[in-house]
Amino acid sequence: MTNLKITRTTLSDGRELIYFDQPGTPDRTAPDERGLPRVETDSWMRRDPLTGEWAIYAAHRQNRTFLPPANEDPLAPTLPGQKPSEIPEANYQVVVFENRFPSLSMHQSVAVDYDPRVDGEDLFERAPALARCEVVCFTPDADGSFKDLPLERKRALIDVWAHRTAEFSAIDEVKAVFPFENRGEEIGVTLHHPHGQIYSYPFVPPRTAAIAQRAGEHREAHGTELFDDIIGAEQRAATRVIEDSEHFCVFTPAAAKWPLEVMVMAKRAVPDFAALTEKEKDDLARICHKLFAAVDHFFEGVDRTPYIAAWNQAPVDTPADGRFHLQLFSLMRSPNRMKFLAGSESGMGAWINDTTPETIAATIKEHYA
Amino acid sequence: MTNLKITRTTLSDGRELIYFDQPGTPDRTAPDERGLPRVETDSWMRRDPLTGEWAIYAAHRQNRTFLPPANEDPLAPTLPGQKPSEIPEANYQVVVFENRFPSLSMHQSVAVDYDPRVDGEDLFERAPALARCEVVCFTPDADGSFKDLPLERKRALIDVWAHRTAEFSAIDEVKAVFPFENRGEEIGVTLHHPHGQIYSYPFVPPRTAAIAQRAGEHREAHGTELFDDIIGAEQRAATRVIEDSEHFCVFTPAAAKWPLEVMVMAKRAVPDFAALTEKEKDDLARICHKLFAAVDHFFEGVDRTPYIAAWNQAPVDTPADGRFHLQLFSLMRSPNRMKFLAGSESGMGAWINDTTPETIAATIKEHYA
Repeated sequence: MTNLKITRTTLSDGRELIYFDQPGTPDRTAPDERGLPRVETDSWMRRDPLTGEWAIYAAHRQNRTFLPPANEDPLAPTLPGQKPSEIPEANYQVVVFENRFPSLSMHQSVAVDYDPRVDGEDLFERAPALARCEVVCFTPDADGSFKDLPLERKRALIDVWAHRTAEFSAIDEVKAVFPFENRGEEIGVTLHHPHGQIYSYPFVPPRTAAIAQRAGEHREAHGTELFDDIIGAEQRAATRVIEDSEHFCVFTPAAAKWPLEVMVMAKRAVPDFAALTEKEKDDLARICHKLFAAVDHFFEGVDRTPYIAAWNQAPVDTPADGRFHLQLFSLMRSPNRMKFLAGSESGMGAWINDTTPETIAATIKEHYA
Repeated sequence: MTNLKITRTTLSDGRELIYFDQPGTPDRTAPDERGLPRVETDSWMRRDPLTGEWAIYAAHRQNRTFLPPANEDPLAPTLPGQKPSEIPEANYQVVVFENRFPSLSMHQSVAVDYDPRVDGEDLFERAPALARCEVVCFTPDADGSFKDLPLERKRALIDVWAHRTAEFSAIDEVKAVFPFENRGEEIGVTLHHPHGQIYSYPFVPPRTAAIAQRAGEHREAHGTELFDDIIGAEQRAATRVIEDSEHFCVFTPAAAKWPLEVMVMAKRAVPDFAALTEKEKDDLARICHKLFAAVDHFFEGVDRTPYIAAWNQAPVDTPADGRFHLQLFSLMRSPNRMKFLAGSESGMGAWINDTTPETIAATIKEHYA
């Protein structure tokens, strides 16, 4: 496991905060002096009887922080004499903490004997949105980005994601753990300070469930692993492979649905960050270092591509039904146009792509070095 | 069926255009004088081996018309002495025509003996995107909106959608027909002229497939129809019902996933527009007249709510597995903020809603009159 120095503390409202530092870093001892009221959320999930999908209701999030002025960056370290941020220390390397405005939370104000039905109707299942959400601060520097982090910091973040995935997975309620980064105001990012998030869900989300189902069907039909066979087919085709390293295949999927999309898939049967070997982590950090830089140069004249970095992990309870992979994609489709998810995508779930996977891969390759 | 006067014509590039007029309207005889080259598209679908979902590739759409100046509105009638638009006549009531930049088309330049695999790989299924897409012009007035149309025009549009649904469904390749309207620049609408679109798909799209599966499971488990039971539960709960008319139930679903969402569901086992009775069409037109006005007043200080009106129809081949319903929703979540589909939604397919279905329904009810 990681050799990072881990310091756990509790914020004044009861949320947990964890510093991850290189060995030898001075102790982290600063208290949260804000005296916040005890955190308590009231978010629920309801299952759509028409589609079977769970939706999460987090009405308290209406009031969350939007693009605060620089001197109120909640992810900045708390410097002496300044207004306290979320992070009590005057410096940090990587820090994670429970989200202050979480979609899902273990701090729920739910009654023990709640009715698992909306309006007492069996068709309208509901449950408290019990799971954990965390913010992951990549750097104390508000102006950087994941791409700009030194290789060692990216490597440390992989250790952090592994650590958090293991801990999240140990929570009884958690059925799936999802680390991700939203980058760019174009996709609604409310804080510019470089950070990611980790969501977990008390259900297997639709994409993870669809993949698990396909993996099972494929195993049944062919006796082989879907993920291995996809990698094998991409390797043979070769037209969309950006890098084929010892431990990962980097490619634009044959049926990519976003105008910019690239996948980094583990070659071994790895379900999640926590199952990666040290060598695999090294390889992944190196790949990220090149890939996120290439993505930022994807569109001519744009040097900061909005993206979603979605770290796909297997379902917690059936790790063989998934394969650890990054799906890195953008809703930008040209230097000044975003892809909107309108009728076909938002209404029917049928994606239309105005480019081809081969074009995407070729453009990424130009900048992948 | 409809008593509208139907005039079929062919545009200079081979696309079909159909006028729908009140009886007694003078004949539509104007030719398309643009002399366009014969239409030929080259769009494909590929099936994602990870999720099983088809994605559509329409690379030629990169060059489609974006927010043209008013004097180049392609949906305006062609007035004498002006540059010809898509519609040759100098006036019209409702007109539909095959999309010039279609995602799917029956005018494909595909070879008869195409390889149904990308790169010759069995895992990478592909097929030409063979189906029909049409634009539906609601009115010759570029400044109006569906909401502002007189009741009779809305009623005529329902006849038009029924007519087109029946014709689309008769195409061998078509497995699902999807009439919809995208409204608002906020969601990427490229033409302000009031219009909708009709897509069809040579596969059953994910939402329709999920509903069909749930309907089958529900029938198996309970011996009743899922759609009837949902309506029954909403009626008993009553907290989200906006109108319960003779033929339709208008409600915000118990598990609504959008910040503004309302459903108009047929009470009878109606699969699609084409199966509606005249009385049901009258009732639906009346409901639309009230509902779309209420939606435009949903947000205080906004008088033009961006929305997606998604007319859900049953799969063409298994009509009993679906129920005709309008899902009318918006990605706007407050007067100046859009909902972005970021990590959880776009990455995992797990929706988070910052409001509740009951709040949505109450707000719509305030303006529904």
